[in-house]
Amino acid sequence: MKISARNTLKGTVKAVVPGAVNTEVVIEVAPGVTITSIITKASADSLGLSEGKKVYAVIKSSDVMVAID
Amino acid sequence: MKISARNTLKGTVKAVVPGAVNTEVVIEVAPGVTITSIITKASADSLGLSEGKKVYAVIKSSDVMVAID
Amino acid sequence: MKISARNTLKGTVKAVVPGAVNTEVVIEVAPGVTITSIITKASADSLGLSEGKKVYAVIKSSDVMVAID
Amino acid sequence: MKISARNTLKGTVKAVVPGAVNTEVVIEVAPGVTITSIITKASADSLGLSEGKKVYAVIKSSDVMVAID
Amino acid sequence: MKISARNTLKGTVKAVVPGAVNTEVVIEVAPGVTITSIITKASADSLGLSEGKKVYAVIKSSDVMVAID
Amino acid sequence: MKISARNTLKGTVKAVVPGAVNTEVVIEVAPGVTITSIITKASADSLGLSEGKKVYAVIKSSDVMVAID
Repeated sequence: MKISARNTLKGTVKAVVPGAVNTEVVIEVAPGVTITSIITKASADSLGLSEGKKVYAVIKSSDVMVAID
Repeated sequence: MKISARNTLKGTVKAVVPGAVNTEVVIEVAPGVTITSIITKASADSLGLSEGKKVYAVIKSSDVMVAID
Repeated sequence: MKISARNTLKGTVKAVVPGAVNTEVVIEVAPGVTITSIITKASADSLGLSEGKKVYAVIKSSDVMVAID
Repeated sequence: MKISARNTLKGTVKAVVPGAVNTEVVIEVAPGVTITSIITKASADSLGLSEGKKVYAVIKSSDVMVAID
Repeated sequence: MKISARNTLKGTVKAVVPGAVNTEVVIEVAPGVTITSIITKASADSLGLSEGKKVYAVIKSSDVMVAID
Repeated sequence: MKISARNTLKGTVKAVVPGAVNTEVVIEVAPGVTITSIITKASADSLGLSEGKKVYAVIKSSDVMVAID
């Protein structure tokens, strides 16, 4: 499947923290650079996420804000 | 300013592509790892974005999807 | 690719309306039921969208609001 | 009330799954075509959602991604 | 229509700035407090927006971030 | 930090309602005008939110819908 979201970053799951409804997934996309995702527990289970798994962090470009100091 | 969005990735502006209303900003967050953002032209002008500028890509964790092959 | 977004609706492209930066894509997911998507022109070109193409409308469950009369 | 969101799909509630904070609502928008929504429990209670209720799934066009196989 | 989005702020349109695809709408929700919205031009036309019109700014609670100095 | 989100509304925290994963924050942006935000509990703790604290409600303009009666 190929998707219209502009950002599809390859990474490795560093942590999976399941909650009641949502699961937090920490993805390392470069050494020392991690992106935290929150998805539904149902999705996390369906994707079989666990530490070390190769995944993609998928982000729409309009969901990326830019900030400066 | 400190914000509730969980992802605040340090990076360098690699490209700024202005449109009529929106501007595309490409941010390198690690060597070879870029994130594309689309913000309003007004915001891009206000932030004074140009190639080489140090910025942050700010992304809410609920806006990060996870995909597997 | 399998994604964490809960809604992946099969459909057929009914119309592609390109703008300067964004492209509007109308997807029929059932007879007479259409969903309108706005994606970047770059994404639309990359996906090779045109009328009649089989696609998926992908929507995160947290982006679906519910309304009543 | 008339809203700027481009997609207002008529449907019938097929399931309401309440969690601690959020409630999952499954809406059938055509025979066999369902859309899953996650809203706050407070909103679900306020709307009086239950199986069989006629509702609308409201989705902004910029929240609809397009994917191909 | 009653919607699941938690924030429905009454206001008055202060400015409508049409672009090629999108329209910027500035809504005053309290004296001196304005909220800027960007919607599609099609939606703005459909709603008949113009300066002085009474409208609602509708925002999902999960789209509101919190920041501190 | 200065951010690309167009809406940065000054306000005062009126209520903080912690859940298991998410926290609801009610922000008064003008007398009698409140905006409800849902952020992760981790973010709320990190920001040290409590009743009476001065904060900003930060909202992207594309996340603000417009409705009319």
